[in-house]
Amino acid sequence: MQKEKAKILLAHGGGGRLSDELIRGTILRILGQQEAGKLYDAAAITLESKEICFTTDSYVVEPLFFKGGDIGKLAVCGTVNDLAVCGAKPIVLSLSFIIETGLEFEVFEKILESIRDAALENNVSIVTGDTKTVEQGKADKIFVNTTGIGIRLVGVELGFDKIKTGDVVIVSGTTGDHGMTIISQREGISFEGELRSDCASVYPLASKLLKETDGIKFMRDPTRGGLAATLNEICMQTGLGIEVRQADIPVKPTVQAAADMLGFDILNIANEGKFVAVVSPQSAEKCLAICRKEPLGKDASIIGQITEKQDAPAVEMITRIGGRRVVQMPYGRELPRIC
Amino acid sequence: MQKEKAKILLAHGGGGRLSDELIRGTILRILGQQEAGKLYDAAAITLESKEICFTTDSYVVEPLFFKGGDIGKLAVCGTVNDLAVCGAKPIVLSLSFIIETGLEFEVFEKILESIRDAALENNVSIVTGDTKTVEQGKADKIFVNTTGIGIRLVGVELGFDKIKTGDVVIVSGTTGDHGMTIISQREGISFEGELRSDCASVYPLASKLLKETDGIKFMRDPTRGGLAATLNEICMQTGLGIEVRQADIPVKPTVQAAADMLGFDILNIANEGKFVAVVSPQSAEKCLAICRKEPLGKDASIIGQITEKQDAPAVEMITRIGGRRVVQMPYGRELPRIC
Repeated sequence: MQKEKAKILLAHGGGGRLSDELIRGTILRILGQQEAGKLYDAAAITLESKEICFTTDSYVVEPLFFKGGDIGKLAVCGTVNDLAVCGAKPIVLSLSFIIETGLEFEVFEKILESIRDAALENNVSIVTGDTKTVEQGKADKIFVNTTGIGIRLVGVELGFDKIKTGDVVIVSGTTGDHGMTIISQREGISFEGELRSDCASVYPLASKLLKETDGIKFMRDPTRGGLAATLNEICMQTGLGIEVRQADIPVKPTVQAAADMLGFDILNIANEGKFVAVVSPQSAEKCLAICRKEPLGKDASIIGQITEKQDAPAVEMITRIGGRRVVQMPYGRELPRIC
Repeated sequence: MQKEKAKILLAHGGGGRLSDELIRGTILRILGQQEAGKLYDAAAITLESKEICFTTDSYVVEPLFFKGGDIGKLAVCGTVNDLAVCGAKPIVLSLSFIIETGLEFEVFEKILESIRDAALENNVSIVTGDTKTVEQGKADKIFVNTTGIGIRLVGVELGFDKIKTGDVVIVSGTTGDHGMTIISQREGISFEGELRSDCASVYPLASKLLKETDGIKFMRDPTRGGLAATLNEICMQTGLGIEVRQADIPVKPTVQAAADMLGFDILNIANEGKFVAVVSPQSAEKCLAICRKEPLGKDASIIGQITEKQDAPAVEMITRIGGRRVVQMPYGRELPRIC
């Protein structure tokens, strides 16, 4: 006879004895946070600097586990990446769960292990947290919020206002891997060859670029909305144009095949371990060389440049066959619950 | 003919044009955050001090709107309070939404207005945010996460380790108001007289106490699990006992009547605008006087004291009729989705 698996109950979120058991017996045990064992309402921290970056993300990805990662790894890397592309060193995270009653402890523990491993790997501490439970049918298994504080790297100033005509646009690797992995898995379609989320921290590579060159003007990780959303956002915020060359945008053949088959424009598809950097023309080759030396940046590519101010600033793409098309801001329907 | 009300779509969370419209056209417009209009992945902030407190909470309260507040006000005050009771001045908040497709814009806008008003009143800035959407039936209208950074008040050191036998336990006002309001409203029961959530920021009063006296050892806001959970937590963490007098625990008659009728122990019921303070015997009367001068603390009361180390440290209550009973840590089933 199979023993029924232990499940999260509504009372685990009630703030009483069962909450305490969940927090001490499961969450803190797995995260290995002895310090947090004191369970104050807020964590007292002494930062290295007053110059910080602060960012939040709630993760609702479906399915919870996918090739190359899971909601736990994503929740750590995603927030770390938002700090990294703003020129900050990620230091601490908060961690908040909304759990649907009935979630198996086994699943929750796997996610916690993933969070612990990703935090260790990224050298960030999870210093405070919260756990809420809701009735069955009032959430989808588990939602995770991480909010992060990073210390701004000294001398680094990034911003839309630094971007000028002639600047060069670099992407740190292949595009669309995360989104196409999620959607294929969700649709139950398997593709030959490698289809795997790129979920990873970009901090090591981003900080290397920022420390070893002085030409970085702006960085962003092209998550929801993909490369198209990031490039359009740059145009909207700067009033400048962007010209990219389709042939220079790195895409894995399997990812492209999946996108073609399912009818997606690869430029709209989310990434979770890539960044777009706008750099000065003088530093472009050096930036590219630095990227390509690292595993995370081995497929990095110069994909285009910032162009003259136009009446209606837009992203234009020179297609493989030499035509031109405007890359629109995606509408948003492409991929729900991708992160 | 009635026009159908505008609703949140799945595509509003897709990271594209509709997300952008939601963020700029609704969220930032209502919050009045022109600065945030730049929409970086993370907010760059310069803090006044490196000594901070950091706290997170996800809010899943049901119903969204209740007498005395709503999920928006709660999300600001709750996180502000966690900072306040740790001896910090709340400075900035992050704000993250998980929205069920189909939520009416009208409802969302009301919540945003509430968040804006509470933030203004509490002098905290909302500096970064995130919005996710999920399919109908995969969340319950809206969940809100706020994560806060506060600056630690100079010279203030609170902690379980400061608590000693003989210290005095003060509660800043009546107990159980928030929880009994929510549960009564949810059950569709109306009580004569005042039944209204105490949802409020305790920072003004807590900081006054911390600045004007030096006898405060520890503070906590007795939210989920109520007074019983907070007092038991103190015993567990210090290994000391607590003796409280039932007659001195302030409870509004309507709140007590509602608890009696619905079969709840008022000590287990959540508050959202109260704190428990453990103070030195010398400072107790002064603390009480300071509380009672302020509207938020007008019902403050000395409810008991810390007692000798015992074999099994416990909260004991001297009942109204002179008996003694142990106040248990609540199990947690009492009140789901109270905050």
